[in-house]
Amino acid sequence: MSSTFGQVFRIHTFGESHGGGVGVVIDGCPPRVPVSVEQIQHELDRRRPGQSEIVTPRKEADAAEILSGLQDGLTLGSPISIIVRNTDQRPGAYEEMAVKYRPSHADYTYDAKYGIRSASGGGRASARETIGRVAAAAVARQVLDKLHPGIEVLAWVKSIQELNAEVDPQTVTGETIESNIVRTGDPAMAETMIERIKAIRNDGNSVGGVIECVIRNCPPGLGEPIFDKLEADLAKAMLSLPATKGFEIGSGFAGTLLTGREHNDPFRMIDGRVRTTSNRSGGVQGGISNGENIIFRVAFKPTATIMTEQDTVTSGHENTELKGRGRHDACVLPRAVPIVEAMATLVLTDHLLRQRAIG
Amino acid sequence: MSSTFGQVFRIHTFGESHGGGVGVVIDGCPPRVPVSVEQIQHELDRRRPGQSEIVTPRKEADAAEILSGLQDGLTLGSPISIIVRNTDQRPGAYEEMAVKYRPSHADYTYDAKYGIRSASGGGRASARETIGRVAAAAVARQVLDKLHPGIEVLAWVKSIQELNAEVDPQTVTGETIESNIVRTGDPAMAETMIERIKAIRNDGNSVGGVIECVIRNCPPGLGEPIFDKLEADLAKAMLSLPATKGFEIGSGFAGTLLTGREHNDPFRMIDGRVRTTSNRSGGVQGGISNGENIIFRVAFKPTATIMTEQDTVTSGHENTELKGRGRHDACVLPRAVPIVEAMATLVLTDHLLRQRAIG
Amino acid sequence: MSSTFGQVFRIHTFGESHGGGVGVVIDGCPPRVPVSVEQIQHELDRRRPGQSEIVTPRKEADAAEILSGLQDGLTLGSPISIIVRNTDQRPGAYEEMAVKYRPSHADYTYDAKYGIRSASGGGRASARETIGRVAAAAVARQVLDKLHPGIEVLAWVKSIQELNAEVDPQTVTGETIESNIVRTGDPAMAETMIERIKAIRNDGNSVGGVIECVIRNCPPGLGEPIFDKLEADLAKAMLSLPATKGFEIGSGFAGTLLTGREHNDPFRMIDGRVRTTSNRSGGVQGGISNGENIIFRVAFKPTATIMTEQDTVTSGHENTELKGRGRHDACVLPRAVPIVEAMATLVLTDHLLRQRAIG
Amino acid sequence: MSSTFGQVFRIHTFGESHGGGVGVVIDGCPPRVPVSVEQIQHELDRRRPGQSEIVTPRKEADAAEILSGLQDGLTLGSPISIIVRNTDQRPGAYEEMAVKYRPSHADYTYDAKYGIRSASGGGRASARETIGRVAAAAVARQVLDKLHPGIEVLAWVKSIQELNAEVDPQTVTGETIESNIVRTGDPAMAETMIERIKAIRNDGNSVGGVIECVIRNCPPGLGEPIFDKLEADLAKAMLSLPATKGFEIGSGFAGTLLTGREHNDPFRMIDGRVRTTSNRSGGVQGGISNGENIIFRVAFKPTATIMTEQDTVTSGHENTELKGRGRHDACVLPRAVPIVEAMATLVLTDHLLRQRAIG
Repeated sequence: MSSTFGQVFRIHTFGESHGGGVGVVIDGCPPRVPVSVEQIQHELDRRRPGQSEIVTPRKEADAAEILSGLQDGLTLGSPISIIVRNTDQRPGAYEEMAVKYRPSHADYTYDAKYGIRSASGGGRASARETIGRVAAAAVARQVLDKLHPGIEVLAWVKSIQELNAEVDPQTVTGETIESNIVRTGDPAMAETMIERIKAIRNDGNSVGGVIECVIRNCPPGLGEPIFDKLEADLAKAMLSLPATKGFEIGSGFAGTLLTGREHNDPFRMIDGRVRTTSNRSGGVQGGISNGENIIFRVAFKPTATIMTEQDTVTSGHENTELKGRGRHDACVLPRAVPIVEAMATLVLTDHLLRQRAIG
Repeated sequence: MSSTFGQVFRIHTFGESHGGGVGVVIDGCPPRVPVSVEQIQHELDRRRPGQSEIVTPRKEADAAEILSGLQDGLTLGSPISIIVRNTDQRPGAYEEMAVKYRPSHADYTYDAKYGIRSASGGGRASARETIGRVAAAAVARQVLDKLHPGIEVLAWVKSIQELNAEVDPQTVTGETIESNIVRTGDPAMAETMIERIKAIRNDGNSVGGVIECVIRNCPPGLGEPIFDKLEADLAKAMLSLPATKGFEIGSGFAGTLLTGREHNDPFRMIDGRVRTTSNRSGGVQGGISNGENIIFRVAFKPTATIMTEQDTVTSGHENTELKGRGRHDACVLPRAVPIVEAMATLVLTDHLLRQRAIG
Repeated sequence: MSSTFGQVFRIHTFGESHGGGVGVVIDGCPPRVPVSVEQIQHELDRRRPGQSEIVTPRKEADAAEILSGLQDGLTLGSPISIIVRNTDQRPGAYEEMAVKYRPSHADYTYDAKYGIRSASGGGRASARETIGRVAAAAVARQVLDKLHPGIEVLAWVKSIQELNAEVDPQTVTGETIESNIVRTGDPAMAETMIERIKAIRNDGNSVGGVIECVIRNCPPGLGEPIFDKLEADLAKAMLSLPATKGFEIGSGFAGTLLTGREHNDPFRMIDGRVRTTSNRSGGVQGGISNGENIIFRVAFKPTATIMTEQDTVTSGHENTELKGRGRHDACVLPRAVPIVEAMATLVLTDHLLRQRAIG
Repeated sequence: MSSTFGQVFRIHTFGESHGGGVGVVIDGCPPRVPVSVEQIQHELDRRRPGQSEIVTPRKEADAAEILSGLQDGLTLGSPISIIVRNTDQRPGAYEEMAVKYRPSHADYTYDAKYGIRSASGGGRASARETIGRVAAAAVARQVLDKLHPGIEVLAWVKSIQELNAEVDPQTVTGETIESNIVRTGDPAMAETMIERIKAIRNDGNSVGGVIECVIRNCPPGLGEPIFDKLEADLAKAMLSLPATKGFEIGSGFAGTLLTGREHNDPFRMIDGRVRTTSNRSGGVQGGISNGENIIFRVAFKPTATIMTEQDTVTSGHENTELKGRGRHDACVLPRAVPIVEAMATLVLTDHLLRQRAIG
């Protein structure tokens, strides 16, 4: 197990989907940062189940309790611990899954690795683990607000299957994204995406898609070559999320079709600053932010749990079939939007503090 | 700077493209592992300049000297330090670049971050830094050979621009890949790719592409949730390489077009083992290897240095133009193949040792 | 802040003396280890206030709640989180101290470092923070019991001021140590020590002393040169405890009076094993355990809080006087005994797992 | 193996006493720091053999070569690698020792841990490993000079056996310490100590002693509770040195004889600063520097290699005898003085950078 992320602004998450609760300990947070508990809860509410008609109807309040590290709304410089109790547990719904490995879930690999596995739900592999990340990032967000105000981190659903949203990363706003329950930045496409998700859910099936994220007003100079390049840490952050299968920054895979002459970003002095007149680099060059918008995309596979009979095996190594039951997202992307933002925020905050150490 | 990679099998690389040399210190290597210096040199030769007519004609022997950690061909358990002297330095070729930021290079961002920059060549951002990684991975390879023989790590050029190779990850061999200088696994496509690279070079331009990699015979159980999932560490490893813009595992971005019913990998008992009958997961589920082939792809952008006049600015913040000079790869992919294998090998070795600690 | 200890078996503690509670997250614990919650509580009870007439009469139940990482009494391999609520808070008792720096406490230095400080009690610097360490070590103890049964870790009060206990580290038992409330291994000296502590407390004063600790049946080979030598990690562990001023192993400072001829430990084959016929090395040579008893001593200064008027300054930088109030230990050593054992157990467990990785 | 020290200013040492060489890689060094190679060599010369008549007469130039990280005398922010070739190797002198475990050396424990051992000399356990530490600290010293000028780190021989030097840590100077070859701060005692060392050497025996160290003008606020307290990291740094058996700070073990009333350091405003009127805390309170002089002591045992027949066993597990041969220090303390300063400087530099990250 390795449940620590970050070098200076470090978070340690804990908790299974069933059990006492989940949470996070944040270590390395600067002191005297105003932290609003409401803002933490607001972000948790953005990721929680039951928030709209296209996400799982599980009822979890996901109320954050802060045990330490804050005093009168200011950080003390000591570890900030946040817990969220598990409440809506229906172990019965998981009885069958306790002995049958759910296809494309982590059931078999957890058994293979640990020789033991949480008897119900996804245990540690559940998306419920991301609560700790989101809570920590809500604190990190307030650290950025104090140390480097103006940095914006915005994610949105870029595509659901082949349905592709037209979004301008330079101008899209959080209000636009939150204006529709699928959280795309292209309101014209929102209804189509929502209908797709509903149709696929009604068919007992599931879908995936791509989330795009922009970081605006990032100062130049963040990222620690050689191994902790900014895009490397972003890639790790995103691939550590459940259901992710790919990461690309700037021109990404499509950029491999271009020649260098087409791909290079020319430099120009603009308003007294070094700027690039195109941004195929995606805001990062040589592992270090260049002050342009940082733009990346994350691929999410279709939800593994589907209401369809599938071939599988038991933990006793016999062939069998399994049909999903319980309350699941037919598409995780709307709830993954705030989680992608959270991981990006954690990476940025850590790198901002790292740069202060040597800068 | 962060030049350390790995948690148990840890490497620390050092060195700029110009200066005394480059190298690596490996800490955490198990003792009593037979290490062939020839094998280290063999891997360095696979990545070195001047090896074929489609790579940079720079003449660097890249001869490895091992300063410590070995005795009579066996590891001592102490740090293994390997240095490679810099020899073919032509600082003159870089004079103009010392004051003009090369577009889509790391010149500007290094200045922005450190306020100082290696006066010639790419300094620390040079691909020459990867020598240390390749040397360390050649040692790691021999650790795997001792602790878990049979694990294979093979990479090949999957595409150059739109030229796509047909390769079966289950059966492709190292001999096939090494049989052509572009290092694709599809000999029928090799000549076309080589011609493309030559043509683009003769035009003073450059190209990128995709490298695919397979890990065969990986035992189930490797990977450390939540943050050090196997695919997360692979993604970080690959995005820490120069010129990379994307990473995907298994179905990757294309998998977002499928439904869950199409995407899930059914489990079946085959030859007494838990197997999946498809492999859209790419050999990793929940961040842990499942025993199937681990398959991933890495996007490399076109080489930034091109022999064409481009807009740029000086370090003194004036607009100017710059035309690349010197000896550069018009396509980095053939030399990047052993580097991708190296990073994958380092990730695997580290995770194998980590699993031993708790297993 | 740095609230993480250990490399493989890693603990993260959190919590201030006043606030919601304190606790610990354990990451890297091997799976399938039987863990008795009663044993955790038993160790917490050994360190808790109010347990005898010579410790602080504060009433804190210090009841452990385990939020994650266990299932049916077995570790899952996932993070084990343990919280203990704060209950007996009397902020009023600390009002004066909120503005006056308590001499030889951490009040001034926390202000100097963080620019903010827990308004009451010792905040993060309180000995209450050690609850997380003791709880984690109780889990570690059970890991040792499974992976390497027979390792014993025993600490006792070696001296209170000049009162020195005669204890044979080879034979002393936990029963003997627990048979007296001062927790010395020399029952003949116990009453004298107890009387000293009572007398000094009645005088509004405080005392310190030395705790000695033995690790028996430690396998040879633990410790990671060069920097994570076993004695180096033990030293760090002990000096990270509140009120400690010194650490010595084996012959320690007294060993500097001897010549090499007197000090060296001769090797002899005994019962087919390599043994030393003396043990001035204290069970560690070159940073690695040699299979002999590991013996070390830790100096604890007299408790800083005394019921006597002392010169000090205010946080507003004015000279003033302060007299301690509230309920404090006049001597921390009896309660520090299980804490010293806890830190030694954590160091051992981490090093045992580290050795498994490469061994 | 764990050859990394520090969190932000990180060093990685490598090399055995016999083999190609030893050295260090420094990662995390701030950029644009002027570094004098002469100052690095000066510190290496202070620790090198053959420098005076009371140290080992081995002839090793210990010339530092810097491979990377510097340009025109300024740090680049990239890893600084420094190597020192091994030259004066006489493997013949060690033949007997290759099969017989030297008492109180690391021969047996290295075999027990690694199952293999450097065939001659101390291998990795040799004091020669400290070259990398001293070279790195010479760089760190220059980082301090730039970022926080005025911090002084001075160590001296406090005692050789019972011969105790009278030294005032407030006023002792480097010139005084360097004025005598035993490097005590008490010139009146120097000759007596030198005579003792010569006499003991002529007798084929060895001695140990205590080194004291002061850090003057340390800013308040350094140290990272809970586990990376300043005294905890100093203790670990010192106990990671060969031949050390104890560490104490401020009042140390003697402080356990005092009562709280005698031991506490009263605060007073002096020249507008918060000061303590005594310094039994040794400049650190609650793990954080308080601006007073940091004073600590380190116990070094007598050199293990003596020219006397001693009982021991062979690596084949047979009883035998061994008499030391070769050229060894009869007392390591004069050469250990710059090494103690080096480790203290490394700890300080790392903590200064860590504080910048969050301060």
